[in-house]
Amino acid sequence: MSIRIGLLGFGTVASGIPYLLRENGSKITDAAGNTLEIAKILVKDNEEKNRLLAAGNDFNFVTNVDDILSDDSIAIVVELMGRIEPAKTFITKALEAGKNVVSANKDLIATHGAALIALAKEKEVAFYYEAAVAGGIPILRTLANSLAADKVTRILGVLNGTSNFMMTKMVDEGWTYEAALAEAQALGYAESDPTNDVEGIDAAYKAVILSQFGFGMTIDFDQVSHQGISTITQDDVAVAQQLGYVIKLLGSVEETPSGIFAEVSPTFLPKSHPLASVNDVMNAVFVESIGIGESMYYGPGAGQKPTATSVAADIIRIARRITEGNLGKSFNEFTRETVIANPNDVQSNYYFAVDTPDKKGQLLRLAELFNAEDISFEQVLQQKANGERARVVIITHSLNKTQLANIKQKLQDEPEFELLNTFKVLGE
Amino acid sequence: MSIRIGLLGFGTVASGIPYLLRENGSKITDAAGNTLEIAKILVKDNEEKNRLLAAGNDFNFVTNVDDILSDDSIAIVVELMGRIEPAKTFITKALEAGKNVVSANKDLIATHGAALIALAKEKEVAFYYEAAVAGGIPILRTLANSLAADKVTRILGVLNGTSNFMMTKMVDEGWTYEAALAEAQALGYAESDPTNDVEGIDAAYKAVILSQFGFGMTIDFDQVSHQGISTITQDDVAVAQQLGYVIKLLGSVEETPSGIFAEVSPTFLPKSHPLASVNDVMNAVFVESIGIGESMYYGPGAGQKPTATSVAADIIRIARRITEGNLGKSFNEFTRETVIANPNDVQSNYYFAVDTPDKKGQLLRLAELFNAEDISFEQVLQQKANGERARVVIITHSLNKTQLANIKQKLQDEPEFELLNTFKVLGE
Repeated sequence: MSIRIGLLGFGTVASGIPYLLRENGSKITDAAGNTLEIAKILVKDNEEKNRLLAAGNDFNFVTNVDDILSDDSIAIVVELMGRIEPAKTFITKALEAGKNVVSANKDLIATHGAALIALAKEKEVAFYYEAAVAGGIPILRTLANSLAADKVTRILGVLNGTSNFMMTKMVDEGWTYEAALAEAQALGYAESDPTNDVEGIDAAYKAVILSQFGFGMTIDFDQVSHQGISTITQDDVAVAQQLGYVIKLLGSVEETPSGIFAEVSPTFLPKSHPLASVNDVMNAVFVESIGIGESMYYGPGAGQKPTATSVAADIIRIARRITEGNLGKSFNEFTRETVIANPNDVQSNYYFAVDTPDKKGQLLRLAELFNAEDISFEQVLQQKANGERARVVIITHSLNKTQLANIKQKLQDEPEFELLNTFKVLGE
Repeated sequence: MSIRIGLLGFGTVASGIPYLLRENGSKITDAAGNTLEIAKILVKDNEEKNRLLAAGNDFNFVTNVDDILSDDSIAIVVELMGRIEPAKTFITKALEAGKNVVSANKDLIATHGAALIALAKEKEVAFYYEAAVAGGIPILRTLANSLAADKVTRILGVLNGTSNFMMTKMVDEGWTYEAALAEAQALGYAESDPTNDVEGIDAAYKAVILSQFGFGMTIDFDQVSHQGISTITQDDVAVAQQLGYVIKLLGSVEETPSGIFAEVSPTFLPKSHPLASVNDVMNAVFVESIGIGESMYYGPGAGQKPTATSVAADIIRIARRITEGNLGKSFNEFTRETVIANPNDVQSNYYFAVDTPDKKGQLLRLAELFNAEDISFEQVLQQKANGERARVVIITHSLNKTQLANIKQKLQDEPEFELLNTFKVLGE
């Protein structure tokens, strides 16, 4: 007897699922240990239902979620509606009804995942969400299974395809932020309100989920600081290039002696770093660990077929477990007490671009300010002196978040200096 | 009660296992659903045993494999001896004794894997070997699980760290093959007889295993043609660079309309290809598929801790299955009838370097020869004319293996031409 699936939503990603089941039927059946059948699909209303039927979609579309939730023959519910509500309510009801759930909803899982995971555990059903992070890249399953014997020390990721597409245009082709955004919007990569993508919010959701799988800790979304790409100028890009770096918007989660720290920020990456050549809408997750050392997982972060492939892998895994009569295992078994790092333990090199008067003694004054905070320079570059103002670029040696906050304050307090930008710099 | 493990061999990789169990004990216990215990370790003789004990290794070393095979309390046997025998006999006996087996032995699995896999299936025990391909990269488990809903069309891999280290020296620093080999040997990357690494044999073993996981087909090792890096000259490297390519030794497995084809060969890769920046001893596997599209898995291909991490992930997976009372699943469930491609269906662009007399009409003659085989040029470059001999470099459009064999024969039959080198070229 087939394993019956209920889909919640039939948008782009969801409609990729029947495609995969059709194209790879026998392989999927072998992997799942059973045939899979899309029993019912929830759509918004009769209008959508009739439109889909008229377009030749031969499925049992329903408009009331209870038709799926109360159907005992349905073992797996796949939520592909996005947003928080009604997805959260529907998933909760599905888990309570003893159904296994697959979701690709990163916003929901990053903000309400803990409760849903606990509910799934209590009900002894599976709740999988591989597609919630980096679409087609199987990073969560890899962290949970293949790195089960490893200790992750840092995860760095290009986690948002839209902003990476824009950064690629800005870095490789010298475009302005505004031009890159317009192009991303024209191509349908960025929404009319691009805030979530360009300000690092989308990447921060993913960092929350990565911290669970990589470090066993559940950070709150508002504990992940995020800085976006909208303030990056052509000057920043040019000086990065000159010094051998590429700027990328990176999500980063690391464990320090005092705890875990996660943030999303534009980062100067050495050109030789594997993440530096991740371009356009592609995503990649770079994992540093004591066992493997350095590994990277690269692929499309979004899109119909890649995301549907990840969702289908979750469905197959659950179907296999149903076939084997063995559903207890959580998607991620690694949990520890969550401890947030002391800011003094969070270290990085930094890039500072400072606008100064173009007159004698300014570099000395800057050096005094940094020195007073015990921050030393790795590289200093004076650019664009025009007789009135000059632009000084500094790459520092390692400093911590307390030092960073202090020096930023000091620079702001100096009436003659203007701090143009500050970005993280990844050492070689 | 702990799950008890017997190690066969205590070389570099094996001694990394206790390190991981110690460093990541509680995480591993959570993932395995049980504690793991190294019960016995097989070493060669009393001399090795005494040396290891004297060095402070606190394990139960045994010198007779039967001490492990006949110990009913041992559930998992981990073979890390390498080579075909006695590993093959020991694994066979372990499987026959109903023990689960983990191995990292690519030579053995590529040449005798089918029989061992069948035996494991018959005995309903697990036989896992993630570390056999690309050391620390979790590529086999990813193909089996995360790409379960996908259809792979081509796998390209930098599968041998030693030859990749050498190619990196040759490409980035202009070293000769001989200098690169001497350095690889000095650093301990290459053995005194480097044949397996530099002639693509090691990579061909891995291609055999990748074809099982990616395509469900079991190619014989001798059906994988392999060409090594020893004939690559500084001229080849320089012209590749000039034309926008990097030369890498790539393993390739692809499905054509008539069947599967696998080979290992030096390949011109566009500089923008993700595999082009995989340098030094790192490995990477690039997967093309109808679902995800393009994904890449990057990491160390060898080394103690990376390989031990992959082996430990296999151990944990099996331990979990033992805990759940559920051992039936094969490491790879995807199997189809193996059909080898018709050579006419195996297509690629190619690079030809031809030594010609430095006189009028030679390019015309070359063009006539290629044209007669219906091969067209994408780029032609005449180099190094010295009044006597000239070097002509051709990048072709796509041709098949039959055309390739024909044109090579034709060039060899021309007394005035010398075919210096022919390599595959990956299109943009």
